[in-house]
Amino acid sequence: MNKTLIGGLFAGAIISAGSASAQTGEVLADTSFIFNTMFVLICGFLVMWMAVGFTMLEAGLVRSQNVAMQLAKNIGLFSIAGLSFFLIGSALQNPQGVWSIAGLLSGQALGTTGVEALDAGRIDGQNLSGAANFFFQLMFCAAAASIVSGAVAERVRLWPFMIFVLVMTGLIYPIQASWSWGGGFLDSIGFVDHAGSVVVHTVGGWAALAGVIILGPRIGKFADGRVNPMPGSSLPLATLGIFILWLGWFGFNGGSSLMAGTPEDIVNVGRVIVNTNAAAGGGALAAMVLTQALFRKVDLTIVLNGALAGLVSITAEPMAPSLATAAMIGAVGGCIVVFAVPLLNRLGIDDVVGAIPVHLGAGLWGGMVAGVTNPNGSIIAQFAGIAFTGAFVFVVSILVWFGLRAAIGLRFPPTVELEGLDINELGMEAYPDFVLRSEGS
Amino acid sequence: MNKTLIGGLFAGAIISAGSASAQTGEVLADTSFIFNTMFVLICGFLVMWMAVGFTMLEAGLVRSQNVAMQLAKNIGLFSIAGLSFFLIGSALQNPQGVWSIAGLLSGQALGTTGVEALDAGRIDGQNLSGAANFFFQLMFCAAAASIVSGAVAERVRLWPFMIFVLVMTGLIYPIQASWSWGGGFLDSIGFVDHAGSVVVHTVGGWAALAGVIILGPRIGKFADGRVNPMPGSSLPLATLGIFILWLGWFGFNGGSSLMAGTPEDIVNVGRVIVNTNAAAGGGALAAMVLTQALFRKVDLTIVLNGALAGLVSITAEPMAPSLATAAMIGAVGGCIVVFAVPLLNRLGIDDVVGAIPVHLGAGLWGGMVAGVTNPNGSIIAQFAGIAFTGAFVFVVSILVWFGLRAAIGLRFPPTVELEGLDINELGMEAYPDFVLRSEGS
Amino acid sequence: MNKTLIGGLFAGAIISAGSASAQTGEVLADTSFIFNTMFVLICGFLVMWMAVGFTMLEAGLVRSQNVAMQLAKNIGLFSIAGLSFFLIGSALQNPQGVWSIAGLLSGQALGTTGVEALDAGRIDGQNLSGAANFFFQLMFCAAAASIVSGAVAERVRLWPFMIFVLVMTGLIYPIQASWSWGGGFLDSIGFVDHAGSVVVHTVGGWAALAGVIILGPRIGKFADGRVNPMPGSSLPLATLGIFILWLGWFGFNGGSSLMAGTPEDIVNVGRVIVNTNAAAGGGALAAMVLTQALFRKVDLTIVLNGALAGLVSITAEPMAPSLATAAMIGAVGGCIVVFAVPLLNRLGIDDVVGAIPVHLGAGLWGGMVAGVTNPNGSIIAQFAGIAFTGAFVFVVSILVWFGLRAAIGLRFPPTVELEGLDINELGMEAYPDFVLRSEGS
Repeated sequence: MNKTLIGGLFAGAIISAGSASAQTGEVLADTSFIFNTMFVLICGFLVMWMAVGFTMLEAGLVRSQNVAMQLAKNIGLFSIAGLSFFLIGSALQNPQGVWSIAGLLSGQALGTTGVEALDAGRIDGQNLSGAANFFFQLMFCAAAASIVSGAVAERVRLWPFMIFVLVMTGLIYPIQASWSWGGGFLDSIGFVDHAGSVVVHTVGGWAALAGVIILGPRIGKFADGRVNPMPGSSLPLATLGIFILWLGWFGFNGGSSLMAGTPEDIVNVGRVIVNTNAAAGGGALAAMVLTQALFRKVDLTIVLNGALAGLVSITAEPMAPSLATAAMIGAVGGCIVVFAVPLLNRLGIDDVVGAIPVHLGAGLWGGMVAGVTNPNGSIIAQFAGIAFTGAFVFVVSILVWFGLRAAIGLRFPPTVELEGLDINELGMEAYPDFVLRSEGS
Repeated sequence: MNKTLIGGLFAGAIISAGSASAQTGEVLADTSFIFNTMFVLICGFLVMWMAVGFTMLEAGLVRSQNVAMQLAKNIGLFSIAGLSFFLIGSALQNPQGVWSIAGLLSGQALGTTGVEALDAGRIDGQNLSGAANFFFQLMFCAAAASIVSGAVAERVRLWPFMIFVLVMTGLIYPIQASWSWGGGFLDSIGFVDHAGSVVVHTVGGWAALAGVIILGPRIGKFADGRVNPMPGSSLPLATLGIFILWLGWFGFNGGSSLMAGTPEDIVNVGRVIVNTNAAAGGGALAAMVLTQALFRKVDLTIVLNGALAGLVSITAEPMAPSLATAAMIGAVGGCIVVFAVPLLNRLGIDDVVGAIPVHLGAGLWGGMVAGVTNPNGSIIAQFAGIAFTGAFVFVVSILVWFGLRAAIGLRFPPTVELEGLDINELGMEAYPDFVLRSEGS
Repeated sequence: MNKTLIGGLFAGAIISAGSASAQTGEVLADTSFIFNTMFVLICGFLVMWMAVGFTMLEAGLVRSQNVAMQLAKNIGLFSIAGLSFFLIGSALQNPQGVWSIAGLLSGQALGTTGVEALDAGRIDGQNLSGAANFFFQLMFCAAAASIVSGAVAERVRLWPFMIFVLVMTGLIYPIQASWSWGGGFLDSIGFVDHAGSVVVHTVGGWAALAGVIILGPRIGKFADGRVNPMPGSSLPLATLGIFILWLGWFGFNGGSSLMAGTPEDIVNVGRVIVNTNAAAGGGALAAMVLTQALFRKVDLTIVLNGALAGLVSITAEPMAPSLATAAMIGAVGGCIVVFAVPLLNRLGIDDVVGAIPVHLGAGLWGGMVAGVTNPNGSIIAQFAGIAFTGAFVFVVSILVWFGLRAAIGLRFPPTVELEGLDINELGMEAYPDFVLRSEGS
C-alpha cells in the first residue's frame, strides 16, 4: 500500500513533470513557428518595398517623356506577378517531387499545391505558415521581373511587356527556381545560393539581356557611331530607389533562410544583415573611388548602381563571410559595374538603367564567389548552376521576346518613341506643369 | 517517518513540477503578450507610413501651384490627430459601457480612460499593451482624416481645414468607431468590419463628399459646361504614394485583429497579408484592362486608384476569402473607380484625387461583400452598419463644413486660387527653381 | 529497498521536474534573446531609413544646381560610416574598461573588440546578438554624420567632406559615445540620454556648427547686409524626408533600450513610441501656430523642422513623461526652431537645412529636460554631459575642418559654386530635362 501509494504519487509526479516538459517542448515549437512566420512576413514587406525601389530607380533614370509609362509598367508587373505566381508559378517552384520541365510537360507540376498549402495554414517540412512562405516567394518572383523592366525601358510597348512578365513570373522564374530552391537537380549537385544572386538576379539579368537584344537600342542612342548619353529625369528619385532597395535587401537576405525561431537562427540573421550592409557600402565606395580615378569625376549614377551591385554580390552567401570579406565582395561588384557599363555600350547594347551590369554582372560574381565563401560550396557546382540557369532563361527569354515581336510587335513607331511614350500611349505627362528643355527644340 | 519523508519528498516533487508547469503557462501568456504588442507596434509603424503615402499621392495629384499647401495640410492633420485623439477621441472610441452620443453628452465618455489604460501599461480584455493599442488606433483615426485632405485640395483654406480635422479626429471618427469597434450597437447587431472598409474608408469618403459639396468645385473645373482636366504635378510622387499605401496596408489589415501571439493568430495574419496583396493587384489590373478597353489608353491615375480601391475593398474581410476571391473582390473595386470617377464629374462634384470613388465607392462594396465572405456576416447587418455610419458622418460633416463656411469662410479669393495657394498663402513655392508652363500664360 | 526505490524514484522525479524547470528557464532566456535581437534588427532597419530621410530632406532643401552633389555626399557618408565604424569606431565606443582618449592613445581601445563580439554571435552583458547591436550602433553613428551633411551643403567639396566623415564616424562620435553609452565617465556621474538627444543630435549639431564656421556662408547668402533666401528645390522631397525621419525615429527611440524580451520591456517600448509620436506632432503644431502668429504665414520648412525638433527633444527621455508632457517637450523644441533660424542668420551663420537649430538647439533642450523627466536624472549631470560632449566635439571638429581647409581646401572656386556643383564637379544634373529659372538670368 505504502509502495503503491508511493508509486502512485511518484507516477503523478512523473506525469506532472513530464507534461510540464512536454508542454515546454510544445511552447518551443509554437514559439519558433510564430517567430519564423512573423519575421518572414516582415521580411516580405521589405522585399515588396524593393518593387517600389525598382520603380523609383527606373522612373528617375528614364527621360521625363517616358516616366509615366515606366510607372505603369512597374505597377502592372507587380500586379501581374501576384496573379501568375498564384495560378501557376508557386506550384511549379515547389513541385514536391516532380520539378523541372518534365513535371511541367506531364502536367504533374501544375495545380494548386502552393495554394493548398496556403489554405492549410502550415506547410510541410518548414516551420512557418504557408501564406508567409507564399508571400515571401512571390515577392522574389516579382523582383526578378522588375529587373527586366528597367533594361527594356523607353521603347517597349506596354502590353507585350506585360505578356512577357506573365510568362516570366508564371513559368521562367518558377521553373528555374525549383531547380535550386524547390528540391531540384541543382540543389542535388550542391549548388548554393542563399537569397538569389543567381536564381533572382542573374535570371532577371538574362531575361533583360534577351529583351534588349531583340528590341534593339533606343533611337539615337548609338547614332553616328557614338554613344549618346540620355540622362535620366530625376537623380533624387533614382537615389531614393537605391536606398529603398538597400533597405529592402535586409529583408531579401535576412528572411531567406526562412528561420528566426531559435537563438542560432536569429544570430545568423544578424550576421546576414551586417554583411549585406557592408557589401552595399563597399560597392558604393568602390564605384566612387574608381570613377574619380578613371574619369576624374564621381559618377553618381554609377555610385548608385555600385551600391546595388554590392548588394547583388553578397546575396548568394551573406552569412559565412566576415564583415571585411563582405565589404570586399561588394567592392568587386561595384568595380564590375564601372567596367561593364561602357562595355555594353561598346557592344551596342542599350540597357537604360544599367540592370545588366548590376544584376547579371554582379550576380555572376556573387554566384561564383559563394563557391568559396560558403563552407558547403564548390566552384564547379556554382558554375553548373549558373550555366544551366543562364542557358535556360536566356534561350527561353529570347524565344518569348522574339515570338512577341513576330506576333504583335514590341516597339512603337519612331515618331511615338521620339515624342515620348507618355503623351502618345497614355495620353498624359508625368510632369505636366513643367517646361521641358526638349520643348524648345 | 519513512512515509513522512516520502510524503515530504513527494510534495517537493509535486511543487517542483507544479511550479514548472505554472511557469510554463506564464511563459505562454507573457510570450503572447510580447508577440501581440510587438506586432501591433510594427503594424502601427506601417499605418503611420500610410499617412506619408496619402501625402505623396495628394502632392503628386494637385497642381504644382498648390503642392506646398497640400504638404502643410497633411503634416498638420497628422499632428492634430495625435492631439485630439489623445485628448478626446480615444476615450470616446473605447467608452467601456457608455459609448455613443448619449455617453458623450452626459460627459461619461469623456475623460482619460484611454490614457489611464495607456499609463497602466496593459489594457483590459486584450492581451497587448495600452500604448500599442492607442498608437494603432490613432494611426487609423489619422488615416480617415487623410482621405478628406485629398478630396478638398486646391481650394480649402488651411485653418478651417485644421478645425474640421480637429472635429473629425476628436469626435466624428471615434464616436462612430465606438459603435463597431468599441462594443457599440453595430457590433451587437452583427456588423463586421475587420480593418475598416466602412469604419475608416467610407467614413473618410462621406466626410470628403460633404466637404466638396459645401466647398464647391475649383474655379474652372466645370467651366463652359465641360469637365476640364487639371492634371497633377507629379505622377512619380503619386505612384510612390500608392506603393507606400500598398505596403502600409499590410499593417492596416495585418494588425487589425490585434493578435499575433499564437500559431493560429499568425497563420491568420499570413492569410490576411496575401489576400490584401491579391486584392490590390486585382484592382490595378482591372483598372488597367478596363481603361484600355473603354478609352483605348491605359490611364495611370486610374490604375493607381484601382490598386487603392482593391485595398479598400478587401479591408472589411481579408481573412476568410480564398486568394482568388480576394483578387476578384479587389478587381470589382478597381472597376468601381473606372465608372465612379466620370460619374462624379457628371454630377459636378470636384474630388481632386479621386478619394470618393476609392474610399467611399470601394468601401461600400467592401463593406457589403463582407456580409457574404465573413462566415459570421449578414447582408442586413452590413447594410445597417453602412447606413448608420454614413448617415451620422455625412450629416455631421455637412453641418461642420457649413458652420465653418458661415463662421470663418472656407475658400480663398478667386485671384488667390487662380494664382496658387502656395505663393499667396504660404509665401513659398514647392518647386521654386523650375519654370512652369502656367508662367507663360 | 523500498526506501531506496522510493528515493530513486523520487530522485528521478526531482530530476525530471528540475530539468523541466531548467528547460522552462532556458526557454525564457532564449525567447527573450530572440525578441531582443529581432526587435533591435527591425529598429535598426528603421534607423537606416533615417539616413534616407536625411538624404531626401537635404536634396529637397538645396537648390537644384547642387542636388546631385548632396545625394552623392549622403550615399557616400553612409558607406564610409559602415567602414570606419567597423574598423575603429565600434571598438572605441565599447572599450570594455579602457574607454576615452587615454584608451585610444594607449592603443588599448583600438582593435577588434566589436568585431570579435560580432563574430561570437552573442555579446557579454546584454541579451542580444553582437551583430544586431553592432548594426544598431552603426546606424546611430551614421545618423550623426548625416546631420553635418545638410548644414555644410552647397559649398563643401566632396572628398574633404568624406574625410571629415571618416574622422567623425571613426573617432569623434565613438569616443564621446563611449563616455555615455560605453560605460564611461559620463555614465558614472549619472548623465542620462536614452537615444541620443545629446550623444547623437547635439554631437551632429556641434560638428555641423564647426563646419559652417570654418567654411563660411554660401556666396550671396549674406550679400549687401541682407539675408537672401535661397529656397530649396523641392518641398515634396523635403516633406518626404521629414516623414521618413518621423517613421525611422520609432526605431531610433523604440530600440534604444535594446530590450523587448519581457512584458515590461515591450510595455516600455510602447510608451516610447506614443511619446515619440506626440513630441513630433507637438513640434510641428507649435511651429505652425507660431509662424502664423509671428509672420502671418505658415512656413512649411519651419513646420517640417519643427516636427524634427520635437523628435530630437524627446529623444533623451521618451519613456518616463506622460503623453501630454511629451507633446509639450516637443512643442518647446518646435518653438526653438522658430527663434533659432533667424538668430543664426543674424550671426552670419549659413546652415542650409536648419540642422543646427534642430539638432543642436532642440538637442540641448532635450538633454537638459531629461534631467527633470527621467526619475534618475539630475540637471547637473545633464549639464556636465552636454558640456563635456559639446566641448570635445566642437573643438576637435573645428581642428579637423581647419586642418582640411589648410591641407587640401574645402571650397570650390566661386564660379563653380555660382554655376552649380553638379554640372562642374559631377558633370551631371539632377533634373536634366527641366528648364530652370536660373537659366534665364
